[in-house]
Amino acid sequence: MTAVDQRPAFLAALIEAGLFVPTGVKGVYGRGSQFEAVRFGLDDLITRSAVDERAEVLHFPPVIPRRMLESSEYLRSFPHLAGTIFGFEGSEAAAAEQFELASQHADWSGFQAMSDLVLTPASCYPVYAAVGGRPPLVAGGVTIDPGAAYVFRREPSDDPARLQMFHMRELVRIADPVTAVTWRDAWIDRGQALLADLGLDAAPDVAADPFFGRAGRMLAASQREQQLKVELLVQIAGPEPTAVASFNYHQGYFAHLNGIRLASGGEAHTACLGFGHERIVLALLRVHGLDPATWPATVRDRLRLAA
Amino acid sequence: MTAVDQRPAFLAALIEAGLFVPTGVKGVYGRGSQFEAVRFGLDDLITRSAVDERAEVLHFPPVIPRRMLESSEYLRSFPHLAGTIFGFEGSEAAAAEQFELASQHADWSGFQAMSDLVLTPASCYPVYAAVGGRPPLVAGGVTIDPGAAYVFRREPSDDPARLQMFHMRELVRIADPVTAVTWRDAWIDRGQALLADLGLDAAPDVAADPFFGRAGRMLAASQREQQLKVELLVQIAGPEPTAVASFNYHQGYFAHLNGIRLASGGEAHTACLGFGHERIVLALLRVHGLDPATWPATVRDRLRLAA
Repeated sequence: MTAVDQRPAFLAALIEAGLFVPTGVKGVYGRGSQFEAVRFGLDDLITRSAVDERAEVLHFPPVIPRRMLESSEYLRSFPHLAGTIFGFEGSEAAAAEQFELASQHADWSGFQAMSDLVLTPASCYPVYAAVGGRPPLVAGGVTIDPGAAYVFRREPSDDPARLQMFHMRELVRIADPVTAVTWRDAWIDRGQALLADLGLDAAPDVAADPFFGRAGRMLAASQREQQLKVELLVQIAGPEPTAVASFNYHQGYFAHLNGIRLASGGEAHTACLGFGHERIVLALLRVHGLDPATWPATVRDRLRLAA
Repeated sequence: MTAVDQRPAFLAALIEAGLFVPTGVKGVYGRGSQFEAVRFGLDDLITRSAVDERAEVLHFPPVIPRRMLESSEYLRSFPHLAGTIFGFEGSEAAAAEQFELASQHADWSGFQAMSDLVLTPASCYPVYAAVGGRPPLVAGGVTIDPGAAYVFRREPSDDPARLQMFHMRELVRIADPVTAVTWRDAWIDRGQALLADLGLDAAPDVAADPFFGRAGRMLAASQREQQLKVELLVQIAGPEPTAVASFNYHQGYFAHLNGIRLASGGEAHTACLGFGHERIVLALLRVHGLDPATWPATVRDRLRLAA
């Protein structure tokens, strides 16, 4: 049995219901009040579910230093997804010329110069750099809650579950290798239970990131083989299930890159998890219907939606 | 009496206390748990204060279509503050070359092409476009709550109150001219009272936007003369008071630009207000001290900070 691709119809229904508001660019939408009420409820549910982590809140804006991206492997692995920020540094005459071109929707890119900022590709990126600037970590390491930051992926699509900018609610664990991977593995079950309680049938699957090009296929195979990435998949509107959460073990990669050390002298490893806010809200809208007021009472209670 | 510029010392103290976390770029900081607790409390206080507005929640990501910026006057008035988003669209060979240059922190800007997105300069920008796509507004118009969106201003600074990316909590009023301007004027008093209840002595002042260049000086003078922009100023750490909220009347500019119409046939006008989250939190930290646990009980109660 092949499932029908209902993504375009789902997107149209979301817009019709005022849940998504088009902006004119694919994958960039406004979010209506009902959508946001569910999303805030979800974020609070994740916070409550993670309360025993005693995580340190550390929030970053949706931009990071360009140098941070350059120092990572991101541009090797995902050059097609990165967004860089350019700005104007010219004279008044140049500004007038730029404005004239722009107001005609002509090419004004020549007046823009690369800045020292890029869009944040994943909310944990600045966390590793911040922790790298600290003294060596004591036993047990740290757990950081970077919140539900907006992250950017340049992949315009008609799939409402594939946005160019979306909220990735992460938690980051930095500790000795066993602690990090054990934490990651435990959260796969916890995440699955959290989604099940919302009526979402989420199945875990070993996964790989969308690496670029032919060399990327080898990176993906290696990532799968080492089970570094596990996703929770839910049927939304596409022919295949969609990842709504991911649980990642980076081994020593980010710790080494950012100079994160353990006071014990051992090697620090990192793990992170990310719940895709918008995808989970979309999955809920798909399963329970476009009007949250009609959702099962147990689901509304968990999300603390007002009566 | 000339006040001393205590901004560098204040920034250092914020970092020392873990309230701000440096990223390596001026004006781009992580926000620690205490800072965020106050900021969330402030956002909730603003929401409660505005409950009688029955505003429609409509949230947008921190990017807008480039075309939206091009169609506005923004690039004429503020070319120096805009951030545009570029991306990679090349081959595997080009990606490898780009990565090589980037990892050496050399110039890889030539591999980046202008995308159809720019960073959001003010959280109300996408609101006008969304309302412009609706049927003509019935009597009374609409009030939109775009929430506390991240907005971008390219102005790197050592002043902790001048960030490149910050939360602007806006409310937008779209209605007939008298309703719009009356709403704006009433909120100047409401905003002043809200800040006074937090122990902030905020004075209103007719202001102007930081228009670019020589022509900008005329625009600023005209804006002042028509009293289109009023700011609430608070002493933070600079020699001069800092604007922490602004109340703007745009007359018919945004309505005309976005095709917003009234069912009555009359001309639609718009007004907006914006509370600068970070600046207000900084003002509170400056006035009440860097440890929110020691703040006056009345202030903590209003912000609903946990005991």
